[in-house]
Amino acid sequence: MHEKEQSKEKKMQKSAFEFTLLAQQGNARAGIFHTPHGDIPTPIFAPVGTQATVKSLTQRHLEELDAKLILANTYHLFLRPGDDLIGEMGGLHAFMAWNRPILTDSGGFQVFSLSDSRQIDEDGVTFKSHVDGSLHRFTPERSIAIQENLGADIIMAFDECAEPYDRSYSEAAMQRTHRWAERCKLAQARADQALFGIVQGGVFPELRTASAEFIADLDFPGNAIGGLSVGETKKEMHAMLELVNPILPQDKPRYLMGVGTPQDLVQCVKRGVDMFDCVLPTRLARHKAAMTDNGRMNLMNAQYARDEGTISETCRCYTCQNYSRAYIRHLVQAKEMLSGTLLSIHNIHTLLELVRNMRQAIIEGHFDEFAQQYLANFNE
Amino acid sequence: MHEKEQSKEKKMQKSAFEFTLLAQQGNARAGIFHTPHGDIPTPIFAPVGTQATVKSLTQRHLEELDAKLILANTYHLFLRPGDDLIGEMGGLHAFMAWNRPILTDSGGFQVFSLSDSRQIDEDGVTFKSHVDGSLHRFTPERSIAIQENLGADIIMAFDECAEPYDRSYSEAAMQRTHRWAERCKLAQARADQALFGIVQGGVFPELRTASAEFIADLDFPGNAIGGLSVGETKKEMHAMLELVNPILPQDKPRYLMGVGTPQDLVQCVKRGVDMFDCVLPTRLARHKAAMTDNGRMNLMNAQYARDEGTISETCRCYTCQNYSRAYIRHLVQAKEMLSGTLLSIHNIHTLLELVRNMRQAIIEGHFDEFAQQYLANFNE
Repeated sequence: MHEKEQSKEKKMQKSAFEFTLLAQQGNARAGIFHTPHGDIPTPIFAPVGTQATVKSLTQRHLEELDAKLILANTYHLFLRPGDDLIGEMGGLHAFMAWNRPILTDSGGFQVFSLSDSRQIDEDGVTFKSHVDGSLHRFTPERSIAIQENLGADIIMAFDECAEPYDRSYSEAAMQRTHRWAERCKLAQARADQALFGIVQGGVFPELRTASAEFIADLDFPGNAIGGLSVGETKKEMHAMLELVNPILPQDKPRYLMGVGTPQDLVQCVKRGVDMFDCVLPTRLARHKAAMTDNGRMNLMNAQYARDEGTISETCRCYTCQNYSRAYIRHLVQAKEMLSGTLLSIHNIHTLLELVRNMRQAIIEGHFDEFAQQYLANFNE
Repeated sequence: MHEKEQSKEKKMQKSAFEFTLLAQQGNARAGIFHTPHGDIPTPIFAPVGTQATVKSLTQRHLEELDAKLILANTYHLFLRPGDDLIGEMGGLHAFMAWNRPILTDSGGFQVFSLSDSRQIDEDGVTFKSHVDGSLHRFTPERSIAIQENLGADIIMAFDECAEPYDRSYSEAAMQRTHRWAERCKLAQARADQALFGIVQGGVFPELRTASAEFIADLDFPGNAIGGLSVGETKKEMHAMLELVNPILPQDKPRYLMGVGTPQDLVQCVKRGVDMFDCVLPTRLARHKAAMTDNGRMNLMNAQYARDEGTISETCRCYTCQNYSRAYIRHLVQAKEMLSGTLLSIHNIHTLLELVRNMRQAIIEGHFDEFAQQYLANFNE
């Protein structure tokens, strides 16, 4: 195929990644993001399947939870089993038997947070695998090539996430993130993946503003906000969102990476965020805690030993429809794997039900009341 | 209620535990054992839920596998969370949200195999918990009382399992098992549980004959064969079954405890066994191995890294309907919990499908051909 035809086809297919805005109340938005593996209703929360599995759940559990989008980690899958292997097996959807939308991150965040002895230069990052110490190198082009092998519906630009309070490092990292975003866009060869740019800039208003403007100008089909929920205060996080979101285009989804708690989801939807992902529901499940609509419940506590009630009286998840706190506490005490499964089902349900309820409230025009009531329930 | 009325009610309810023999081919039998929580078609295999959970599976997985009976361990549940607690929660069925038949063992085997520094006397066994070193005592009466708190449909007499090759110990243990069986029968207070006696006697024909005769005479609603699959050869195990089963009543189910492999199930059904339980399918799953109808498959092997086929081409389990060997091998390599779940589903399905197929073959009158063909497929 000639380059021109390729480019034309690329452009045509790209129009598939349309974001339909259905309703707006204040800055809160309800919409639909169209992808090759199905429509994603927004606001949306994506459970994290780091190694091509949302820990302790079968893919059918996820379908029954009605997860519309899951995230997989490029860094982990590159190291094991390898993106080439997954590509040969037909890509992530076929490999993990998940036929709904998938998002892969760029590997950037993990390279900076998990790998050993990373060395950053203008071209990319050299790092040692946390699995076996082997040496590897990611560049923007390499990250895109790996993500094209993995074949997710949404892929991310390779970025550098700085410490949030280091002004000069934040500025340098942001500028490099911008140059890398341009290189990622140029490197993209597949037309059936939506490449999202990432806004950086730490907690510094002028950097965040500059970054949002730069990334918005690159006209990605969606935009992410990175480098938040990494140590800054909630107030700072909210201030950055209030600054960045009005600059990002209205007709593209906005994705806040690595967030969060139920309260975070409400606070950030209120400030114009459409998409979230976080390991919290499955990580808390492995740490024996349930997320509820009024705070966390530690199932290790002796007070639940003879408690015939369910985690939440009103919850409609499989766990709460069938199992008592006493039984789950027993599983936790006895270190049984089923505790992780049952708590993961409940925790993911809690966040998915929350985004579904927020979406409904926005469409019906009473999101502000919903948010106020929901947040008032928390003791935390 | 007066003693006489109690005894009458007990007798009336006991008739609920009827065993309907539907077909017989040689010594192989197909039947139905009726229990308060439903009919158990035989031959049957019971997955083991040691701590009131079949490891890594939800109860719905078990329902979908169409498990008709599961086993739970009295020793483990007595120690944690405690049979009193489970009794307060309404018994095992309510506690673990499993509304189908359950069998509990007597705790005898675990006291002898798991606990520390056990001391046996005529009255019972004193032992230290393997969990926290605390001191406990089981007697036949205590075992029945605990099993009545747990509330399974089928409960077992408290027995002593000897080393299979020690003649004098085997004889002493057998005789004590007989005296304990009588005490268990006397101790039983609930009428809605079927108490099974257990035949012991090691690998010694005259002991096994005497034990089968003694236990048969006690007229339990079902009879078990204990102390096999504990180190003796297959030939010895088969010889003991050929001796014991013709002595045990035709109109009661025969339960071979702690067995086994697919080949064992076929060989023992052929010799008149109706019921089995074994940790093998779930234990192999945690050790990364699949049971198939022609041998074991170790999913750690590099040869499966790019294998797009399923564990078994003909298997209809959820795992084989959805996931490739390559994906399961990746999960195994990455130490993901989902590997245990997917392999447990497959392994339990393999044994349940095998007993279903044997039952069908007996009813249709071609069990011998089925057994011959099935066993010929194994490379092991």
